[in-house]
Amino acid sequence: MMKLITLLTDFGLQDGYPGIMKGVIWSIAPDVQIADLTHEIPPQDVLSGAQALGRAAPYFPAGTIHVGVVDPGVGTARRPIAARLGGSYFVGPDNGLFTMLANRTQAMGEQTVVVKLERSEYWLSEVSNTFQGRDIFAPVGAHLANGTALEALGPPVRDPVMLTLPKPGAIEGGWEGQVTHVDHFGNLATNLNLSYLDPLSVKEIRVGGKVINGLRNTFGEGQPGELLAFIDSSGSLSMGVVNGNAAQRLELGAGAPVVVLVSDRFVAG
Amino acid sequence: MMKLITLLTDFGLQDGYPGIMKGVIWSIAPDVQIADLTHEIPPQDVLSGAQALGRAAPYFPAGTIHVGVVDPGVGTARRPIAARLGGSYFVGPDNGLFTMLANRTQAMGEQTVVVKLERSEYWLSEVSNTFQGRDIFAPVGAHLANGTALEALGPPVRDPVMLTLPKPGAIEGGWEGQVTHVDHFGNLATNLNLSYLDPLSVKEIRVGGKVINGLRNTFGEGQPGELLAFIDSSGSLSMGVVNGNAAQRLELGAGAPVVVLVSDRFVAG
Amino acid sequence: MMKLITLLTDFGLQDGYPGIMKGVIWSIAPDVQIADLTHEIPPQDVLSGAQALGRAAPYFPAGTIHVGVVDPGVGTARRPIAARLGGSYFVGPDNGLFTMLANRTQAMGEQTVVVKLERSEYWLSEVSNTFQGRDIFAPVGAHLANGTALEALGPPVRDPVMLTLPKPGAIEGGWEGQVTHVDHFGNLATNLNLSYLDPLSVKEIRVGGKVINGLRNTFGEGQPGELLAFIDSSGSLSMGVVNGNAAQRLELGAGAPVVVLVSDRFVAG
Repeated sequence: MMKLITLLTDFGLQDGYPGIMKGVIWSIAPDVQIADLTHEIPPQDVLSGAQALGRAAPYFPAGTIHVGVVDPGVGTARRPIAARLGGSYFVGPDNGLFTMLANRTQAMGEQTVVVKLERSEYWLSEVSNTFQGRDIFAPVGAHLANGTALEALGPPVRDPVMLTLPKPGAIEGGWEGQVTHVDHFGNLATNLNLSYLDPLSVKEIRVGGKVINGLRNTFGEGQPGELLAFIDSSGSLSMGVVNGNAAQRLELGAGAPVVVLVSDRFVAG
Repeated sequence: MMKLITLLTDFGLQDGYPGIMKGVIWSIAPDVQIADLTHEIPPQDVLSGAQALGRAAPYFPAGTIHVGVVDPGVGTARRPIAARLGGSYFVGPDNGLFTMLANRTQAMGEQTVVVKLERSEYWLSEVSNTFQGRDIFAPVGAHLANGTALEALGPPVRDPVMLTLPKPGAIEGGWEGQVTHVDHFGNLATNLNLSYLDPLSVKEIRVGGKVINGLRNTFGEGQPGELLAFIDSSGSLSMGVVNGNAAQRLELGAGAPVVVLVSDRFVAG
Repeated sequence: MMKLITLLTDFGLQDGYPGIMKGVIWSIAPDVQIADLTHEIPPQDVLSGAQALGRAAPYFPAGTIHVGVVDPGVGTARRPIAARLGGSYFVGPDNGLFTMLANRTQAMGEQTVVVKLERSEYWLSEVSNTFQGRDIFAPVGAHLANGTALEALGPPVRDPVMLTLPKPGAIEGGWEGQVTHVDHFGNLATNLNLSYLDPLSVKEIRVGGKVINGLRNTFGEGQPGELLAFIDSSGSLSMGVVNGNAAQRLELGAGAPVVVLVSDRFVAG
């Protein structure tokens, strides 16, 4: 079976940087298959990158190596790391980019092992201060695909950087959460997921000065132009406009507060 | 020989949704090769998606599986389908997205067989109401690549949805057609193709208040900034500006009327 | 080992043109691996394309075939060419797009052999005047991947078109160069590379009315919002804003002048 490497960066597509990383990978591991997750993470937005990696990684087969580069600290003392998370791998900067992967691994009762990348024989021979995706992370990912043991790459890291994610808070009659992601369609995803909400209990959603009554199963149940709420494909409460763009309509983005009121028998506490 | 799957969606590239579909496909069919056709179909624009698929599919080898997801009806009663079109395959929503492929198959005297996707053992174990590209279409495409028979996926569909495409009409001295596609360069493609026009007969093109005299073979025959008409790489009458953008210059888009006057001996009727 | 083909164009991603080229390639050479370098070269900007190809190609393994299509002269008398540059290949229009590859090959003491594409049995059977990326360059790249000899494709070309690149000039106390590339992050790269500058010698950079004192190793050494200068991952003097966009801040683009003053003992002459 072919080995898989995924790439997630904030490099954009215009300059060819992701293509360069593929050249480096295929120079070391010629038979690996490479999937772009996205290269359009907003520049330096580590949290957005961590969320995108968290959405995508569970759908890749065991053994997949995820190379992630959203790296405001490139070239500074921040550590380059690699990690084995259950059956898959992460390679990138130690800035929390793999937080969702590590959380999910823990939730599944599997082990996360992190090492600091120190063994430069697994890197390109020259390492720049500004493009370690090319010089360190891509080659390390390729060597992992070739069978190099994680432990060979450098010493253990006991305290990898983890992002602190905003959590919903209980309020009278329900929950207050936040918008965590605006997607290409303008849908507003939140941190109010199925561990907080029973979909049948949701009475009312308040967001951006609007009130939405209950949940729909899907867009097709609403009228064109209607603002509605639903459980999205990641299991999170989301708001969207049928054939439209909720983020533009409500002029909201990540961080915006969202209040959900639920039926009495489901009230928090 | 490797099996090929293509992906065409309106998902954009920022959120990683196409990457997720690749993870699903490679989890089921590890050795398949995957090509992105485009993920920048305007949101919910089924006609644009059908045209893009119609432009691209003929250039792929026999046996290629085209997974197309432009799906305003996701999660509603609209049927998920798969089709064998001569030697290739389509998987996606039953909303007309495969219209050009079906028309072409018919024109070549080959058979189109359509089934409704009902056999959930070929899907992911959990199916969301909003991302069936991940949960149904990608896994079905992967199973087809693995050799699953089309007929095993569900019962026959006799009445798949087909788009009605605007056709040119004969007018005195020529034809009136429509702009059907504005490409990245701002070129305006029309539904006036070689079945309506003999290139040698074209005297005059009227579009957006401008008059163009005859056809050129290619851009390089004009002056920078000149508006000219030509037969494009799909065999359709198109208008473009040399080193410029005709759509911006003329402030026109899909649907705009285009009149072509032809030499006497070629007049319709 | 799999053969590699890279694609670099100004086609954008919306219309599916790069996907069509992949279909053509895989129809001829089913087992080749394909990497997109970029499809977002500004329309008809041959110099930008040549620079992007020059940045990326050195990181691909020997034998890689680079298909490049930025081609304002498509369909005119400009020649279609293929070239062997040391151990790798270029296929595209004869308009200078491979200038950086040819310069690098010469600098490494290796040979460049160029042929004019004339043998149409290696093309698609129908050739359009506007999409030779699909009809000529993609199929020729695929045939090279299948082992067809370069010399079989057509007669030698002794005078391929080469771009003349702006070079820095010596001034009193230093050098005056130009911005050559603005990347996705808004960083401004210049033609002042390590063959002109010893990083330790740089005293002052003047660009867009601003003065920058000396070089930093990387962004993390500056404060958020600070304009700084550094040697980028291609070995060129670049200016950037920490967590910001230097091109927007300075309202500068390619061609803008940049003056560097160096320590006495390094002054030119």
